[in-house]
Amino acid sequence: MSDSSTPSAYREAGVDIDAQERALARVKKLAKKTFTPGVLTEIGSFGGLFRPELSGLGEPVLVASADGVGTKLRVAALTGDYSTVGRDLVNHCVNDILVQGAEPLFFLDYVGAGVLEPDAIVALVEGVAAACKENGCALLGGETAEMPGFYQPGDYELVGFIVGLVDRPRILDGSKVAPGDLLVGLPSNGLHTNGYSLARRVIFEQQGLALGDPAPWAQGKRWRRGRPTVGEELLAVHRCYLPVLRSLLAHPGLHGLAHVTGGGLTDNLPRMLPKATHAAIRVGAWEIPPIFHWLQEKGEVESEEMFRVFNMGVGMVAAVAPDSLKEVLAALRTAGLKGSLIGSVRKGRGGVLYDFGAQESADEEDA
Amino acid sequence: MSDSSTPSAYREAGVDIDAQERALARVKKLAKKTFTPGVLTEIGSFGGLFRPELSGLGEPVLVASADGVGTKLRVAALTGDYSTVGRDLVNHCVNDILVQGAEPLFFLDYVGAGVLEPDAIVALVEGVAAACKENGCALLGGETAEMPGFYQPGDYELVGFIVGLVDRPRILDGSKVAPGDLLVGLPSNGLHTNGYSLARRVIFEQQGLALGDPAPWAQGKRWRRGRPTVGEELLAVHRCYLPVLRSLLAHPGLHGLAHVTGGGLTDNLPRMLPKATHAAIRVGAWEIPPIFHWLQEKGEVESEEMFRVFNMGVGMVAAVAPDSLKEVLAALRTAGLKGSLIGSVRKGRGGVLYDFGAQESADEEDA
Repeated sequence: MSDSSTPSAYREAGVDIDAQERALARVKKLAKKTFTPGVLTEIGSFGGLFRPELSGLGEPVLVASADGVGTKLRVAALTGDYSTVGRDLVNHCVNDILVQGAEPLFFLDYVGAGVLEPDAIVALVEGVAAACKENGCALLGGETAEMPGFYQPGDYELVGFIVGLVDRPRILDGSKVAPGDLLVGLPSNGLHTNGYSLARRVIFEQQGLALGDPAPWAQGKRWRRGRPTVGEELLAVHRCYLPVLRSLLAHPGLHGLAHVTGGGLTDNLPRMLPKATHAAIRVGAWEIPPIFHWLQEKGEVESEEMFRVFNMGVGMVAAVAPDSLKEVLAALRTAGLKGSLIGSVRKGRGGVLYDFGAQESADEEDA
Repeated sequence: MSDSSTPSAYREAGVDIDAQERALARVKKLAKKTFTPGVLTEIGSFGGLFRPELSGLGEPVLVASADGVGTKLRVAALTGDYSTVGRDLVNHCVNDILVQGAEPLFFLDYVGAGVLEPDAIVALVEGVAAACKENGCALLGGETAEMPGFYQPGDYELVGFIVGLVDRPRILDGSKVAPGDLLVGLPSNGLHTNGYSLARRVIFEQQGLALGDPAPWAQGKRWRRGRPTVGEELLAVHRCYLPVLRSLLAHPGLHGLAHVTGGGLTDNLPRMLPKATHAAIRVGAWEIPPIFHWLQEKGEVESEEMFRVFNMGVGMVAAVAPDSLKEVLAALRTAGLKGSLIGSVRKGRGGVLYDFGAQESADEEDA
């Protein structure tokens, strides 16, 4: 990792250069702990070298993706807790290539800030490295850039790049998805990394809540042992679906995957659909977590916008052949996640059609 | 490319959503024009798919690097000219993997801003795409993130990620470099992407110059036809060395390469040196461009700091076997670049030793 700052710039900003160098040395150690057999060099040379294991692959295809964390970073800055956003970033990227059938090879990160505070750098990269390790993905390199005046104090930009590998016949590109396929929703773990601009407006500006306040939506049995704070809820880590889906990637009944990110179900489901089909979604077929109901009510947000801005409790959707449904649900349950049948693929003109009737009857049953 | 903003956030910021969507559509078209035969999908799916051509390679190794443009981005924001920094980014990344012997396969970019102005996005990605095309590198994907309040108006963060390929026996890792090797410097094209914090302080804060002022260091024969402005000089594009070095990558006399970025010759030359050697550099053996002399004089910067902050006119250094020197210089000349013999590798304790005597005699000759 290199940086583009001058020693005098460090000094003028009052940064302890020794502490910063110790932090960067620590970052290298953290990265080294993620190294897999493919890594040929240590971080710190100009580029990272990786020798992919290609044996057994007929036609190896690389899958690459770039992503950021969005304004969830602002929540991290406000709480001063930078330990979670690195995991968000890696998990998001892993999910993005997973939906094409790829497993991760390596990851690179970029951290930008006005002043690189040693503790913040270490916390950010600790999160990145921990999630890389969990996913068997080498943290091959990265860049830390100190850009005085470009970022506000406490703000850290965090960008990630991932490269994965898939054998060409195993690529999930939507071509297997067909009318009649069932859509299985996998539960999200909070907002993941999308909708933070709207959520922050409702929570902080409109409702005047503070990060340390108990989350007002966190009521009921689930939180009997103690209510989380608003900050804790907003920093809940983006769930990674590789552990629960890995064993299903080779399953002939798994026809497609969609990662529910910016644009929600509305924009992301169509990315795995073939032409002349649409996704029919039964709202109410899964439990929408209280935070989304609360945001919709307090923010007076239309349902249509909710489903484009937030994941609404569904972080990943699998298109499954009807006769494989039981097997897929059982595999997910074994891996520790409860899938829900949230709809199906039908002949149509593209997009997503929501049936809100199911939600209303569910609400009536609750009442 | 996806984004993490809400439609209402766009509207509130007064952005013309249609114009923005047209800009993003244009970005996709720009990327598509860079596609090489390896690209399997269009931009816009979750991840980009790339099938590397591996025939003829005994042991294919991927080389990856992440980088930013640093506070040169602030100069782009101040001039309102976003057309050049994309080229800086790509060229920087291409050079970073070139020094390990790799040629680029694909590139991904990240653009972050408070509000994504359509014209700025297009200008930024046009630069990225143009440089990708020049280097035979596919712009495989990217991310544009609108983060209200995170960036100041007009500021755009630009991060790049490159993946290249090299056959393992051809990796340049410094192991071939030995005492007695000669160091050939390749001319830079201005500041490239380093030292902008210090340069901006001297030029704007201390000297009170404006971006539209004629560059005070641009005097003499070279600029007879008209002096460039300060802004033009500061936005001069980071030179890419792939075109001039490609034919030499397989040359047995090319022992190592160092890309002179943050840290200057002082920090980057040692990255290609084996243990128990140092680089002996004869300052004055090449022409240090006037901008560096001017910055040193006006900013009252020590020589030691100059050589750590700026490239001092040398953007790339090749370590060359003595009996290959003539051939290497001739190949560079044929490719259109004049290499200079700037020093040699010697037995030592690491680092760079500068001989400033040569500069003084050169200065005396000038006088």
